[in-house]
Amino acid sequence: MQSFELDKTDIQKIKQALEGSEEELLLLLEDYHASEIAIIFESISLEDQKKIIHLLPADLASEIISEMSHEAHPEELLIEIDAEKRQEIIEELDYDDATDIISQMDAEDQQEILEEMDKEDAVNIRNLLTYPEDTAGGLMNTQVIKVDAEMSKKQAIDQIILQSEEIEEFYTIYVVHDDNVLQGIVSLKDIIKSKANAKVADLVNTDFIYVRADVDQEEVADLISQYNLTSIPVVDVNMRLLGRVTFDDVIDVMEEENTEDMLKIAGVSEDEELSGNWIEAVKSRLPWLILNLGTAFLASSVIRYFEPTVSKIVVLAGYMTIIAGMGGNAATQALAVTVRRITLSDLTDSQAYRTVIKELTVGFINGAVNGLIVFAFAFFYDGSPLLGLVIFLAMTGNLIIAGITGAGIPLLLKRVGIDPAIASSIIITTFTDVFGFLLLLGLASKLLL
Amino acid sequence: MQSFELDKTDIQKIKQALEGSEEELLLLLEDYHASEIAIIFESISLEDQKKIIHLLPADLASEIISEMSHEAHPEELLIEIDAEKRQEIIEELDYDDATDIISQMDAEDQQEILEEMDKEDAVNIRNLLTYPEDTAGGLMNTQVIKVDAEMSKKQAIDQIILQSEEIEEFYTIYVVHDDNVLQGIVSLKDIIKSKANAKVADLVNTDFIYVRADVDQEEVADLISQYNLTSIPVVDVNMRLLGRVTFDDVIDVMEEENTEDMLKIAGVSEDEELSGNWIEAVKSRLPWLILNLGTAFLASSVIRYFEPTVSKIVVLAGYMTIIAGMGGNAATQALAVTVRRITLSDLTDSQAYRTVIKELTVGFINGAVNGLIVFAFAFFYDGSPLLGLVIFLAMTGNLIIAGITGAGIPLLLKRVGIDPAIASSIIITTFTDVFGFLLLLGLASKLLL
Repeated sequence: MQSFELDKTDIQKIKQALEGSEEELLLLLEDYHASEIAIIFESISLEDQKKIIHLLPADLASEIISEMSHEAHPEELLIEIDAEKRQEIIEELDYDDATDIISQMDAEDQQEILEEMDKEDAVNIRNLLTYPEDTAGGLMNTQVIKVDAEMSKKQAIDQIILQSEEIEEFYTIYVVHDDNVLQGIVSLKDIIKSKANAKVADLVNTDFIYVRADVDQEEVADLISQYNLTSIPVVDVNMRLLGRVTFDDVIDVMEEENTEDMLKIAGVSEDEELSGNWIEAVKSRLPWLILNLGTAFLASSVIRYFEPTVSKIVVLAGYMTIIAGMGGNAATQALAVTVRRITLSDLTDSQAYRTVIKELTVGFINGAVNGLIVFAFAFFYDGSPLLGLVIFLAMTGNLIIAGITGAGIPLLLKRVGIDPAIASSIIITTFTDVFGFLLLLGLASKLLL
Repeated sequence: MQSFELDKTDIQKIKQALEGSEEELLLLLEDYHASEIAIIFESISLEDQKKIIHLLPADLASEIISEMSHEAHPEELLIEIDAEKRQEIIEELDYDDATDIISQMDAEDQQEILEEMDKEDAVNIRNLLTYPEDTAGGLMNTQVIKVDAEMSKKQAIDQIILQSEEIEEFYTIYVVHDDNVLQGIVSLKDIIKSKANAKVADLVNTDFIYVRADVDQEEVADLISQYNLTSIPVVDVNMRLLGRVTFDDVIDVMEEENTEDMLKIAGVSEDEELSGNWIEAVKSRLPWLILNLGTAFLASSVIRYFEPTVSKIVVLAGYMTIIAGMGGNAATQALAVTVRRITLSDLTDSQAYRTVIKELTVGFINGAVNGLIVFAFAFFYDGSPLLGLVIFLAMTGNLIIAGITGAGIPLLLKRVGIDPAIASSIIITTFTDVFGFLLLLGLASKLLL
């Protein structure tokens, strides 16, 4: 299959076929990969999703459901499917995917589905449901391939082939004792390349990366990314092997964390679903806007305080918006660079200090250059060099403040253990609004009146 | 090794050891993984990096250099290393990593290094250097494992073991003809699980995902992420196998693209290095700020136009900043959600239309709620219900415009083939500034004078 992108015509074709015969629909569906059908599901009704799922064999259906994004609500689809088909599908799902989907249901539906399940599966999933969703435990799959260090090469390969029935990928094999304590890892590569009389104990690597089940998913993603791992074993406090997290789960986590960061910086709650409806969007954004309204009143009270000055020099009203707007944008620039930098690597104290100094310098230079342009405008257009000077000083001062707060506040938040991305542009621009007006109007009332 | 984070003490320990004996330093370095030493390199001088590299065996040294981030400038280090050691290190580097590093050097250094290299390696790297850095060709590694469809299971496994000498990971094996035309893929899993008398032709999967060398790296990342692939083959127009891109390269690409998006939205050039110095930061941001200054003059000209109104009702000056600031923040919210949504999945026309309608609705409701609060303030504090009405209408109107432009402009840009993230908050807030002032001051001069 060549790589190709789904477009409207694919969705239209499917929609048309949904109204035709089952044979036609099945024939058409053969052209698509499970992950593509999962995307198409985002554009068709729950009824149509259900119809397609019932037509397909359980293994393909389970693959589609596990590929559906959270936002497409696979749990709603799963509840709708007839009990018998549902059991077959859940049987085929990896435990981590099944747990993920079931965790989104309300308690009653969870109970019902767990009860109709195979006993062993239900125990496993109930167990996985106890881990918070955003930890290594919540991310892991409990199906792993294990061998004993005392096995011969032949025994190990036989075991691997036997255990691999349920597992897509098994290139890292875990070496455990009888008590399930993880001793090390061995790669399939090393096993197949070894001499025929080799033992697992000769090949095992005991210096390996692992995580505890309560480790935050962002840290798991960092480790997988930093050490280029295809998977990472998850253990309990006694080093007993609980499961593994694979790189593909982590790619999703990374995208999720990146989305959260970008939304938080823009003053949107991190849990707003990108494709959610307007009610969710209002709920997620209105609190931030009301907070912003409070800070805007604060900035506007500075203007009110200087009302006598503004009423005497009305031209200041036009410059006010320039000084405040430029400060806000310069602060957002410093904020985005700093937050992104903190996300990608922790900064030492001296790096943090140098970052603030750098942003102060950048603010000074950008402020002075823009200040000169505005000075020239005030000089030639308004014919007032003194007004120009006031604006030049306010611009330079405000962009310095923009640099210091844009870099300093997220670094400070990180230092005290708060997510730096919460220092959204809304918070930062309050500083540049208030100080911008204070500088401009304060200087104006001293120098121009 | 337990997962752990590097901190200041690690760097201090290394710095101290750098002043002591070589034996001590080597002993200390043994505690660290290559990717950790690469991170430590970001905090020590080029001289010290060189000292460490010369102490270590070439395979470990090459691993460290390939793990160094772009921003830590591995190419500068490589140039500094003595010629003999450098040759050993380059010999150990994967072609894609070597090409990546060499591509950052100036033409003269590139020439020198390619000349001192093994002839075959030099040909391969020169060849890779011709692909743009941000395409599948620029990302791929040319070392892959290939078998012929006519081979028996035994022959295939022997070939795999033979070819795997240079390759870390080889779970997807490429099936090619003598002319190197890619026919399909076969997994190591299927080969080892097959019967002893199986042939590759019985196991090959001819329905697989591949990319052409000129495909953009972002699309490569999307495919690997969407189809949960550990690697993807790269072919030329005649389906000849050129190499493969592995998932670990793609994780780096995703982080890079996410950084670019976040910076662009904040009005920072995408090529600003996060840890760059102030000169780079000024170069990257000043043009955007000057653009913003131009748009700020535009907004301020609206205020100048209404100067007679402002001079009569000075209290408007304070409300101006509230209306414009709220509009800017609401637009940034809509912008972040929409850009992120476009990045993660393409929208159909009807989805795009619904997105704009949704944002319009959100803008209306958030505008009305905030408008009511400001109305109450104007009513009770300024004692003017008519002023309150004007502000209510301006707030509601401006937040509707914020929703439409924040969602509509990136969607429009995407439609005409421009990167939607370029619709930075600087561009969007121009609209909310201009319309905010127009609405507030226009309504005020009609209703209040």
